[in-house]
Amino acid sequence: MPTPNAVQARPHVVIVGAGFAGLSATIALRKARVDITLIDRRNFHLFQPLLYQVATAGLTPADIAWPVRSILRAQRNARVVLGTVTGVNTDAREVRLHDASCHRYDWLVLATGASHNYFGNDAWAAVAPGLKRVDDATDIRRRILVAFEHAELCDDPFERARLMTFVIVGGGPTGVELSGAIAELAKVALARDFRRIDPRQARIILLEGGPRVLATFPEALSIHAQRALEKLGVEVNTVARVTRCDNEGVIVNDQRLPAGTVIWAAGVAASLAAQWVGAAGDRAGRAQVEADLSVPGKPEIFIVGDTAAVTNVDGSPVPGIAPAAKQAGRYVAQVIAAAVQGTPRPAPFRYRHYGNLATIGRHEAVIDFGRFTLSGGLAWWVWGIAHVYFLIGMRHRFLVAAQWMFSYLTFGRGARLIAGSEGDVRIRPKDVAPMR
Amino acid sequence: MPTPNAVQARPHVVIVGAGFAGLSATIALRKARVDITLIDRRNFHLFQPLLYQVATAGLTPADIAWPVRSILRAQRNARVVLGTVTGVNTDAREVRLHDASCHRYDWLVLATGASHNYFGNDAWAAVAPGLKRVDDATDIRRRILVAFEHAELCDDPFERARLMTFVIVGGGPTGVELSGAIAELAKVALARDFRRIDPRQARIILLEGGPRVLATFPEALSIHAQRALEKLGVEVNTVARVTRCDNEGVIVNDQRLPAGTVIWAAGVAASLAAQWVGAAGDRAGRAQVEADLSVPGKPEIFIVGDTAAVTNVDGSPVPGIAPAAKQAGRYVAQVIAAAVQGTPRPAPFRYRHYGNLATIGRHEAVIDFGRFTLSGGLAWWVWGIAHVYFLIGMRHRFLVAAQWMFSYLTFGRGARLIAGSEGDVRIRPKDVAPMR
Repeated sequence: MPTPNAVQARPHVVIVGAGFAGLSATIALRKARVDITLIDRRNFHLFQPLLYQVATAGLTPADIAWPVRSILRAQRNARVVLGTVTGVNTDAREVRLHDASCHRYDWLVLATGASHNYFGNDAWAAVAPGLKRVDDATDIRRRILVAFEHAELCDDPFERARLMTFVIVGGGPTGVELSGAIAELAKVALARDFRRIDPRQARIILLEGGPRVLATFPEALSIHAQRALEKLGVEVNTVARVTRCDNEGVIVNDQRLPAGTVIWAAGVAASLAAQWVGAAGDRAGRAQVEADLSVPGKPEIFIVGDTAAVTNVDGSPVPGIAPAAKQAGRYVAQVIAAAVQGTPRPAPFRYRHYGNLATIGRHEAVIDFGRFTLSGGLAWWVWGIAHVYFLIGMRHRFLVAAQWMFSYLTFGRGARLIAGSEGDVRIRPKDVAPMR
Repeated sequence: MPTPNAVQARPHVVIVGAGFAGLSATIALRKARVDITLIDRRNFHLFQPLLYQVATAGLTPADIAWPVRSILRAQRNARVVLGTVTGVNTDAREVRLHDASCHRYDWLVLATGASHNYFGNDAWAAVAPGLKRVDDATDIRRRILVAFEHAELCDDPFERARLMTFVIVGGGPTGVELSGAIAELAKVALARDFRRIDPRQARIILLEGGPRVLATFPEALSIHAQRALEKLGVEVNTVARVTRCDNEGVIVNDQRLPAGTVIWAAGVAASLAAQWVGAAGDRAGRAQVEADLSVPGKPEIFIVGDTAAVTNVDGSPVPGIAPAAKQAGRYVAQVIAAAVQGTPRPAPFRYRHYGNLATIGRHEAVIDFGRFTLSGGLAWWVWGIAHVYFLIGMRHRFLVAAQWMFSYLTFGRGARLIAGSEGDVRIRPKDVAPMR
């Protein structure tokens, strides 16, 4: 905050969450006469759409993460607090943090995102991790690589086959991208690295509960994506109901499917933001918000991004993707700036849909632009260029593009580290079933 | 192993440790008529000389690590086992792993390296981590970055000053490089990122027990290095005896020095290799070996690298640096290959010293070539080019050079992630003292 005097004079905007929504709101308020406190429990902004590449050893965490402080270095009306929010007192207008410190707000923006939804089976989280955070990605990377290492040492052919079976639950974009990338990792990058096992024989099985993968895309693209996955060697099972995940694999449609690695990409659960402020939530816990994204009855509180259930002006639901979160963040910044300046309140939030993208593998992606669709090689190049473009700063663009270039030319994967404190092979039993 | 027949016919060389010594031995045996099993508890080879840059957010772990499997992909007489050795049965000629599996050997090369030596105060390890493994580096990076975050939130000026004090114990190359890099991180890269604290006021204190830093270098270079560090704002205290490390800082020369972060770069303890094979060890636990690097009385077992105490042909001790480890690894490969082929045993190991290097900061390094020395900007360029050259493969060379280029041009640090399961601010109390 610039000077102690200004602190008194200017309204205080507290923004919780430095994801796409929260960061966009902060930046869009850079010229407003407000003081901003941006709170996040991590010190970095994460480009989640590429997180699956960290999980499959194509990129490293630092390639898709930026210290929030350095992004906002020059924005003098913003300060960054590393902290975990534990609750909101809407009467006192205070946000409470893990260390019992409180931040008074005049305006509050909650952009706390979502995590995995195991639909009541939270015990599955230990055996079937989801992919939302950097730590999830390095954990999944470790599990995949350790599975091959254990298979190489394993004498029992059944156990070896189990260790080399990878199950991805959920056929949305994350599930499709993960299964394609694991298939390429196993069948190309690792192909000649082992002596006793042949990683090309790994089974990658994508289980989708509905009748087709990429359910939010046009049906033709779903069919294209499924065929492209199958060409990579992924087994795609639709109308597959998973009723159990454990150390031995999954039970799907009442049949036991032995697997060494299970990854959860099936459901999303909103953060606790709705509960903090007493807003009604939908089944996934997403807060119901007004047309201006504020909480009903609390016009000074906004909920944006994956933790809000927003209906577009045309009545369709706003999807949980990065462009929607960014637009929502920028919109509430406009609303707050208008109120502070005393100018008229902007029209209701209108989400502009530019398209849906999902990549499957080398030279294979699908894009739904609404009016027309793209698939195959051209879509893949568009996908790659768009993602490099959306990264922040030349350094990250250059490093990601360079690593993709090396992977493209060499068919290799650069970040095959089994790291973390469980990085050596003395894995806890709950992570990887013991070898027999 | 190529075919089951060949397994019977060819001698089996077991190499433990995929560091510089073990990996060099493996590669040098690529044309020998032997089968090699290379065992390491990690799946990657680590370029330890640049680990301090991971600890100070300049590089990411994947930049200086290579999957051992991909390095040895084309070497058909080598296989890689991810495993932790728990002992050696020298009578049965078997290496035992964590999972109770055994590997019979005809020749055994132990290259298991070294870890930190707290000189009997092992409890200090929790508060003053050393820098040997990737996890150490990310842990130290986290501690440094979290210290600034906590200082930003701290209202007590004494506690804030403590959090912004960084103590490095040990003035060898690692200690010098770490203190220089932390000073540059605090005083340049982080300088404008905070609102309440000024990271340029951070204290970086290097404590050396002896009379000068870089004790193994010529005295003129020690003086140069100390002045260069002081120019960066590092306080260098020589003849400093540390008698306690705890959550509040250190006690040095009987005075309490409050510090939020303490890093241990003072002592090296060899691995258990000497004990496994019943060899005599020196004070640091390094095995005494014969002139051909074999264990006295056991000509089929060699101990190489940081876990061996080797005397050069001229009577001087061989230093614990990467080139020495590589030379020793290649030498024992020659000895084994000669024995297998029935050619005469090579002459005793002769270490060729090319020089000692240490970098201090931007445009500042010292190099001792023996006949002459270099310091300052030219030494820094030589240091950088030499290190890029010694990385394995174009991908790593390119990525490291690119990141250095960006850091050089922008004065920034690219990998400022607080990651790991303790990455959010709910740090365990033993890591960072609670805020008051």
